[in-house]
Order: sequence, then C-alpha cells, then structure tokens
Amino acid sequence: MGEEEVQVFGFRSGPYSLRVELALKLKGVDYQHIDEDLVNKKSNHLLLKYNPIYKKVPVLVHHGKPISESLVILEYIEEKWRENYLILPQDPHQRALARFWAKYIDDNVVPAVQKAARSKEEEREKSIEEAQETLEPLEKELKNKSFFGGDKIGFVDIVGLVLACWIPATEEAVGFELLSTHKFPNLTKWAQHFVNHSVAKEVLPQKDVLVAFLKNVVFVPKN
Amino acid sequence: MGEEEVQVFGFRSGPYSLRVELALKLKGVDYQHIDEDLVNKKSNHLLLKYNPIYKKVPVLVHHGKPISESLVILEYIEEKWRENYLILPQDPHQRALARFWAKYIDDNVVPAVQKAARSKEEEREKSIEEAQETLEPLEKELKNKSFFGGDKIGFVDIVGLVLACWIPATEEAVGFELLSTHKFPNLTKWAQHFVNHSVAKEVLPQKDVLVAFLKNVVFVPKN
Repeated sequence: MGEEEVQVFGFRSGPYSLRVELALKLKGVDYQHIDEDLVNKKSNHLLLKYNPIYKKVPVLVHHGKPISESLVILEYIEEKWRENYLILPQDPHQRALARFWAKYIDDNVVPAVQKAARSKEEEREKSIEEAQETLEPLEKELKNKSFFGGDKIGFVDIVGLVLACWIPATEEAVGFELLSTHKFPNLTKWAQHFVNHSVAKEVLPQKDVLVAFLKNVVFVPKN
Repeated sequence: MGEEEVQVFGFRSGPYSLRVELALKLKGVDYQHIDEDLVNKKSNHLLLKYNPIYKKVPVLVHHGKPISESLVILEYIEEKWRENYLILPQDPHQRALARFWAKYIDDNVVPAVQKAARSKEEEREKSIEEAQETLEPLEKELKNKSFFGGDKIGFVDIVGLVLACWIPATEEAVGFELLSTHKFPNLTKWAQHFVNHSVAKEVLPQKDVLVAFLKNVVFVPKN
C-alpha cells in the first residue's frame, strides 16, 4: 500500500458498504476491502477499534484514520479526491437537494421496504403500498434523467443503489412486487441502467448471488 | 429584502429551526423568520409548497428556492456564506467527525431523550439510563474543549443545542434528572457556556418560556 492507504471495512454485498466502494471506484481510488463476517458475527477487532460507537460496517480508514456512516464517508471521499470525478453537483442548491434525497432514502424508503419485506401475509398488501408511497417522490424526481445525478452516477444514485440492486433481489427472494414497471417506469429503467453501468458492475453483487443470500440468511422462514 | 433574500420557516422554540437561525446569526446573515403555528396545526400554505415531502419546519428559502432538513440546511449555509464564520472544520477528517457526531445526536440522543421524557413511571429509570448512555460518548468527545467546535461554536454545537437548551427545560417540565453535573461535568459546563454565548442568547428561548411551553403543550398529563 502506498501513500494513499485506503481500507474499507465492509460486508461484501451490504448496500451501505457498496456505496463506499462504488464511490471509490468512480473516483479511481485504489483500496483494500476487509470483509466483515456479519453472518457469523465474528467481528474483526479492528472494526471495534475503528467504530467503537456502532461497531458496524462500513468504516473507511484513510492513513489510519477511521470514518463511519456511509453518508459521512461519501462526503469525505468527495472532498478528498475531487480531481477525477465529482459525485455531488457543484451548485449549492443542487447539492442540498442531493443531500435531501439521500437522507430521504435512508430515513423513509429503506425502513418502509424492510418493513414490507418482513411483513406477515395479512399485512403484506398494506406495507407494500406504504413502501411504494415512499418511492413515488423519487419516481417524480428522476423525470427523464438517466441518473439522479443527470447523465452520470451521482450522490443520490450511489445512496440509491439499495433500490436498484437490493429491491429487485428482495422481490425475488420474498416473492412480492414492489418496484413494478407499470407504477415506476422511471425508477425501473434507472435501476436497469444503473446495474449495467460499467463501474457499478465491478462493485455490485450478481442478482442471483444476492437472491440466494437473502433467501438463505436474511429472510429465512421461521419454523 | 435585498439581494440576499433569506427566509426561515420555523417554529420559534423548535430545536431544528433554532439550528438554522443560530447558524445564520453566527454568519451574520439577515433573514426573515416566518413562524409556523405548530400548536394549532394551521400550516402555512407556503410551507406545503416549499416542503411538500415532509410538510414540516424548518425550511430555508433563499432567493425563492427552498431547502428542508436542518442538517442539509446547515451544509448549505456553510457553503453559501463562507466569508464571515466557518461552522465546519477545514480538515476533511475533522469535518467527517463533526458530521458523524451531528448525525449521532439526531439518530441516537434525541430519540432516547424523547423516550425518557415520555416514559411511564415504571419505565422511567431504565429509559433515563438508556438516554444517559447515548450522552456518554459526547461527554468523552467534549474533553476539555469549550465547544465541540473547539474554542467557538461549530456544527456539532449547533446541532447539539437541543441538548444544551431543551434537555434542561425538559428536566424541569417533566421532573427528572438526566444531564447531571455529577455524571456529565463536561456537557453541563458546555451547556451553561453555550446558552450564555452572546450570539446563542439572541436566538435561544428563555428557559422559563420553554419550560412553560413543554408543560402546557408537549408533556400535558393525560387524564
């Protein structure tokens, strides 16, 4: 490792860790991935040292200094490596909107999708509707753009990879439909476009691998 | 209103609105405060226009363009008015830490304090302990500094005004002790220092006014 020593403590398919890795790849920053064995909960002692508050991934360690929380890490990556690729818009108002939508995804969309995926049969329909309601403003926001970032992957896209990659896999693993082409033509097109982007492809897990993980580890039916 | 037309849709004593107002005051930016009648829930039609997603304050409107979410607004204020006063540190790693603690306060401390304040008699002790646990890392982080921002009010202090100002008022309104001098010598000293800061004083509500509001509106005993 040279001067730019960058380590990512992450979980290989975890949407929050993937954000950090995708941002680094887009910037062309070399890094070392240190995988956390979340399934067996054998936490790396370095993770406890680097993120004593939450003890969770992702953690970015740059020159030995740790940073936690994926949105905070993305801001750091943007500030540290500005030369190659910008993930946030340059206009302050547009930057604020990007930050707003990123926070919106984490505060509203992710919990609603998780709730729907874990809902019991009798609550399924209602919880899907609620999750879809959280997606509607994003469908509108996307308009005719290729990406939330315009013609290239930006901050909201990176944060939204949880939608592009995890929602379709969750739909298949759980057996429900949430992000339908009919209701969300912009978002489904965007998701397709996103997962086939050359840089995103290097980072994002294969759908079938993710579906198997979700089926066998996350959404195991209780007996 | 001149070229720098700045409006804050806020609730006079609301901790999130106060963050925005304190940041603007520290920067020396003139603004118009438009008070939301949250108590009677008569929402301003402009608020619905400016923040259709959450329909809540604070909203900063600059030259007619709205921004919601207090942390997002603070970043915007920092970027737009850099000349007079900086609220974030200049070093990227220090900036990341400031953002981490700000998010920590909103995600962990505020919900725990609210839970403690609203807890039933039999759950009170446990919920106070849990809230105090969330305060411990902040007590440690403050060390011997006057402010989280060092020798001046910074990002974490502004976000943390909910602790400096609302916790002591909540303690008095509800009748419990959370931020004790014995357990939190650094935080209590910081809170005292903060509320007596000349600029903070212009913005923060008087403690007795806040206590009366909390007693009469927020924590009204149910009959």
